[in-house]
Amino acid sequence: MNIKTLAKLCGVSVSTVSRAMNGHPDVSDEVRRKVLQTAQEHHYVPNGAARDLVRRPSDAIGIVVKGVGNIFFTAVIRAIENATEDEGFTFVLHQINTDEDELLAGETLARSKNLRGLIFLGGRCDYTSAQTALLTVPFVCCTYRNSFGTLAEDAYSSVTVDDEREAETAVSYLIENGHRDVAILLSCAKDGSVGELRYAGYKNALAKAGIPADPALTAESGGYSLHGAYRAAAGLVASGARFTALFAAADTMALAAVRALFDAGLRVPEDVSVISIDGISVSQYTVPALTTLVQPAEELGRTAVSMLVAIIRGEAINRHVTLAAALRKGESVKKVSG
Amino acid sequence: MNIKTLAKLCGVSVSTVSRAMNGHPDVSDEVRRKVLQTAQEHHYVPNGAARDLVRRPSDAIGIVVKGVGNIFFTAVIRAIENATEDEGFTFVLHQINTDEDELLAGETLARSKNLRGLIFLGGRCDYTSAQTALLTVPFVCCTYRNSFGTLAEDAYSSVTVDDEREAETAVSYLIENGHRDVAILLSCAKDGSVGELRYAGYKNALAKAGIPADPALTAESGGYSLHGAYRAAAGLVASGARFTALFAAADTMALAAVRALFDAGLRVPEDVSVISIDGISVSQYTVPALTTLVQPAEELGRTAVSMLVAIIRGEAINRHVTLAAALRKGESVKKVSG
Repeated sequence: MNIKTLAKLCGVSVSTVSRAMNGHPDVSDEVRRKVLQTAQEHHYVPNGAARDLVRRPSDAIGIVVKGVGNIFFTAVIRAIENATEDEGFTFVLHQINTDEDELLAGETLARSKNLRGLIFLGGRCDYTSAQTALLTVPFVCCTYRNSFGTLAEDAYSSVTVDDEREAETAVSYLIENGHRDVAILLSCAKDGSVGELRYAGYKNALAKAGIPADPALTAESGGYSLHGAYRAAAGLVASGARFTALFAAADTMALAAVRALFDAGLRVPEDVSVISIDGISVSQYTVPALTTLVQPAEELGRTAVSMLVAIIRGEAINRHVTLAAALRKGESVKKVSG
Repeated sequence: MNIKTLAKLCGVSVSTVSRAMNGHPDVSDEVRRKVLQTAQEHHYVPNGAARDLVRRPSDAIGIVVKGVGNIFFTAVIRAIENATEDEGFTFVLHQINTDEDELLAGETLARSKNLRGLIFLGGRCDYTSAQTALLTVPFVCCTYRNSFGTLAEDAYSSVTVDDEREAETAVSYLIENGHRDVAILLSCAKDGSVGELRYAGYKNALAKAGIPADPALTAESGGYSLHGAYRAAAGLVASGARFTALFAAADTMALAAVRALFDAGLRVPEDVSVISIDGISVSQYTVPALTTLVQPAEELGRTAVSMLVAIIRGEAINRHVTLAAALRKGESVKKVSG
């Protein structure tokens, strides 16, 4: 099988195949996926001296960061870079938007940079084995796992907090403080991502306290931008829904929500208590300081690298590590008479 | 000249030379600098088949980010990555702490990854030509230039805002709003960095308004951490110094200062007005929203890449680009009767 046959099978030009496999940005996702899948099905091996040179074993690990400008990821990326270098590997970073496909981006990166393995920082929790079959190198999901998908446990590795349980802890903390009308602010309640797990944790906490979940108290921002979170929180207030507490699925969303509440004449925590998950450093310095469940950013990054390196070296197989988050009490939760 | 001779000249082992030149982390900065400088003085070319392979022309551009966790840099890094890929180059990221030497880190990265050029995101403004002689590839300083150093203009490229002038604009805005007792919060008033330029802008604004600069109103945090900025601002208040306005040299420092003022019983802007430089998105959502001079993060990153690529391709020579910041009025500055 040569590149001409591959191009014919895919119904595209030889030049398009070449550009698709080398990560050229002017190729559509659809075409790139088709080329990569067809190449894999037919065991296509690129030819030519240049390709041979590139294909010698490299020492590079790729990290695909999904969610540009996610402040929480900054500390994780730094830990991953340090750990990668400590292990003697090269660190290759690629950032994508939240609406891009991390698997496709990862495989394109792996091929064009001849990577030994991939770390996905952020991604969907509902992969099918057909989707991940695209990947030709071992990979570790960092800060998420395949909770809604069909991957076998031994087909991938992950390191994460228990998002459902930590969300339940956060919401239970609000309930312990006397709140019964608890709203939730998240990207999407059903998107096969970490947000959906945190939504499940929110509902678990309510159920355990015998509080019926009120759909009117769910605000979806459709993303993680500050602007989107602000609008969703403002919409919740404008809807007339009554709540004394809010659980936000990320610190940045909580900060935007505090601002939206403020602009609506509601003060935190006097009128509405707010809790979130992440523990970015800036949320300790806002007024009020956020009460949040701190994810162990450094440990998440270091663990992802050590797991991947052990697999690359043939010293370990795929496994799944759960780390604990820790409650950091700020000033955004107030006790009320329940 | 072979590696044995080089090792002898440096007074270290062959293995140390090899590790120093390949960016191994267990070599001290002092030894690495000596090895790199000696190698360059004696035109040492690494030998061996592996090295020959690595030494073929690469398509990689390195970016050295000084100041881990600097939220403002997040948007610039993203722009640099996008522009690098658009130009058909590979993007290699390396992050260092503010106390590390970016030139040394850059040259080590350039050698070990066979880079075509370097972008320094953040760095000192006082390089000597002896220091930059270490670098074997073209480089662009992004967000700073060599204002206090001895480099010839044609020896390097830079893209930045006019930090001195923008700081003057910020402080003049406070003065226009009736403030005469204006404090400044910065990392260090005399560290040969952007902070020193912003300090000069602060003094210019005072001088133009005929206000004597009061040394008691300068608070130095010794770095850009939120914690350091908080302590420095708290110390300023505790010193008993009287001021009605504060210019912070970065948005994150301003956020920490607002918190320190709050903890000391002072409200922003009712008791103290605050202005800063950067324009990170989170500072639009805090209470109060920060009034700040927004740096064009996207344009800074894109310009750095296009300048470097033009030099690599032999289409341009070193040059210096100044971009404008824009005042974003928030809620942290109050007009007082001056």
